[in-house]
Amino acid sequence: MSATTPPTTTPTTTPTTGASPTTVAAYAAPAAKAPLERTTVPRRPVGEHDVLIEIKYAGICHSDIHQAREGWGEAIFPMVPGHEIAGVVTATGPAVTRFAVGDRVGVGCFVDSCGECTYCKQGLEQYCSQGATGTYNAIDKNGEPTYGGYSTHIVVDENYTVRIPDGLSLDVAAPLLCAGITLYSPLAHWQAGPGKQVAIVGLGGLGHMGVKIAHALGAEVTVLSQTLRKKDDGLKLGADHFYATSDPTTFEELAGTFDLIVSTVSAPLDMDCYLALLKTDGTFVNVGAPEEPNSLNMFSLIGGRKTLAGSMIGGIAETQEMLDFCAEHGLGSEIELIRADQINEAYERVLASDVRYRFVIDTATI
Amino acid sequence: MSATTPPTTTPTTTPTTGASPTTVAAYAAPAAKAPLERTTVPRRPVGEHDVLIEIKYAGICHSDIHQAREGWGEAIFPMVPGHEIAGVVTATGPAVTRFAVGDRVGVGCFVDSCGECTYCKQGLEQYCSQGATGTYNAIDKNGEPTYGGYSTHIVVDENYTVRIPDGLSLDVAAPLLCAGITLYSPLAHWQAGPGKQVAIVGLGGLGHMGVKIAHALGAEVTVLSQTLRKKDDGLKLGADHFYATSDPTTFEELAGTFDLIVSTVSAPLDMDCYLALLKTDGTFVNVGAPEEPNSLNMFSLIGGRKTLAGSMIGGIAETQEMLDFCAEHGLGSEIELIRADQINEAYERVLASDVRYRFVIDTATI
Repeated sequence: MSATTPPTTTPTTTPTTGASPTTVAAYAAPAAKAPLERTTVPRRPVGEHDVLIEIKYAGICHSDIHQAREGWGEAIFPMVPGHEIAGVVTATGPAVTRFAVGDRVGVGCFVDSCGECTYCKQGLEQYCSQGATGTYNAIDKNGEPTYGGYSTHIVVDENYTVRIPDGLSLDVAAPLLCAGITLYSPLAHWQAGPGKQVAIVGLGGLGHMGVKIAHALGAEVTVLSQTLRKKDDGLKLGADHFYATSDPTTFEELAGTFDLIVSTVSAPLDMDCYLALLKTDGTFVNVGAPEEPNSLNMFSLIGGRKTLAGSMIGGIAETQEMLDFCAEHGLGSEIELIRADQINEAYERVLASDVRYRFVIDTATI
Repeated sequence: MSATTPPTTTPTTTPTTGASPTTVAAYAAPAAKAPLERTTVPRRPVGEHDVLIEIKYAGICHSDIHQAREGWGEAIFPMVPGHEIAGVVTATGPAVTRFAVGDRVGVGCFVDSCGECTYCKQGLEQYCSQGATGTYNAIDKNGEPTYGGYSTHIVVDENYTVRIPDGLSLDVAAPLLCAGITLYSPLAHWQAGPGKQVAIVGLGGLGHMGVKIAHALGAEVTVLSQTLRKKDDGLKLGADHFYATSDPTTFEELAGTFDLIVSTVSAPLDMDCYLALLKTDGTFVNVGAPEEPNSLNMFSLIGGRKTLAGSMIGGIAETQEMLDFCAEHGLGSEIELIRADQINEAYERVLASDVRYRFVIDTATI
């Protein structure tokens, strides 16, 4: 046993490797819908295959708010949200081979998976048969709750850690760990690229990365946004066209246009209208997650061998591929950097769609 | 002008090529929901690229009933249904190169398309941008109504005519022109084959061909039927497994099992339950056409990168490929041969799901 006694009130900000857990500073929701406040949480000792990461930046994802407010069902409290984590390795377990102290690294939406199932073996850990272990609001294989990125440090298995290339600043890289991969994965899987007409529905934290990535992949990119309010932004981000979905002529004009539509909105859409925008053999992918069911007329699919699909983040190897792609093309998130004491205010602004395009917490302020 | 005067009451059963239309015997619905009765309809003169086909057999498709009863919207009357046509060429236009008198041929759901659009050029005539011309209940490029296969003869452009291989009897081949291709196309497109778990939902005219074709393609085939009533049939047709969807344990037992599910039922399903039967990256294809919209929770797709698709018949080249495949594997439809004066009774039995598995009209009885 280590001689270290975890402090109970003052967080340790420089945990070291050892056999005992260490407490670290964090911002947590003490209960559902309660404001987040400064606290401490335990981090496990750095194990054989673990890296200890000093978190530098943590993005605020809409799903942090869903979960902190129990919008997706019963949750675990206190909850430290945050699965868009960028930082630097400060210690490594003895069996770690992929990272060294000083490496710039990221952690996304999950920190473990079974590693044995057909999906894990294919690099699709996000669809692990046993369920991947969420970076927060989950129970890990030791039966302990996981705590996320609104914190100064985190201990993660190196196999669930990715490298942030030198070309990417850590602050704009943080949101890539969820928003970036959530868009990159379907755009790559359904082959957005030269000669392809791609639409991104919704220009928020997810959508703005969709525009950047689809453009960098070589596709002709159209933004479908509720209004033309963000048109200038959209075009600057790389869109070729920008249409308002509140204007019914948009749906007439764009009928049969797209090979691929990726929807980032979490409100139910009139799917039959949107599916009519696809070419024959086109695909509509939902990455936003409406809580209510959609209505769908099957004729909207049958009449053109169309597909409606869903996609959820990406696997570890694909996340690394995405980061390398973003570094190569100079793609970071558009961010608004905030102090930790602004988290609750930022949550309200996310709910009001008042962010361009991602809040990122400077964890030095925790 | 030809000297032939079309008879007005007695149908000509051996039309010849010429400049004037010829009348032929047929069974038609004189008005929406009216019983079908014997009548005559005009067939156009055999044009440069046309073949005159003596129809031997015509299958009864559920969509014949939908259309004859205006279930899918306003229709054209009198209506001669029938788009599962098998017969023999009895005359050819001067420019015809692909067929000769005596050839055994089939005609499916459409008899023309624009030939110019991107889909026609890809062999996806069924998704023609201008809309393919239905074999019946449509207006052709000359502004004349089309009449289908419940008739003694039909004149069709050779490019919309397919060859029925010698190995297939014409009576069991007729239903392949709609039911066969409707299942073959998605099974081939989504790669049913060795190592794939494929489910067919519904064991009727469409579903029974799905079982035969999926089995012949090498997939492991499961039938999902409302009850176990047709289990023996399903296994004889080539299914490896047979489950009742009225039994809720079916959905527990088969969760995450299938690479591909093809649904032939035209009633709305509980899509979220069915999508849970797919593996990650699995596809659920609807070829049945429910008139009412379905409810769908997008999480059912997102949680495993699943796709929900539609598919509609097949193109001309693919229809030929399907017939060749069926001949090679000895696959015909299971049929109940009827006289023309049994059509109305057969319609009632189709609506009552009382047919194993396709009614085929012996057109010699018209």
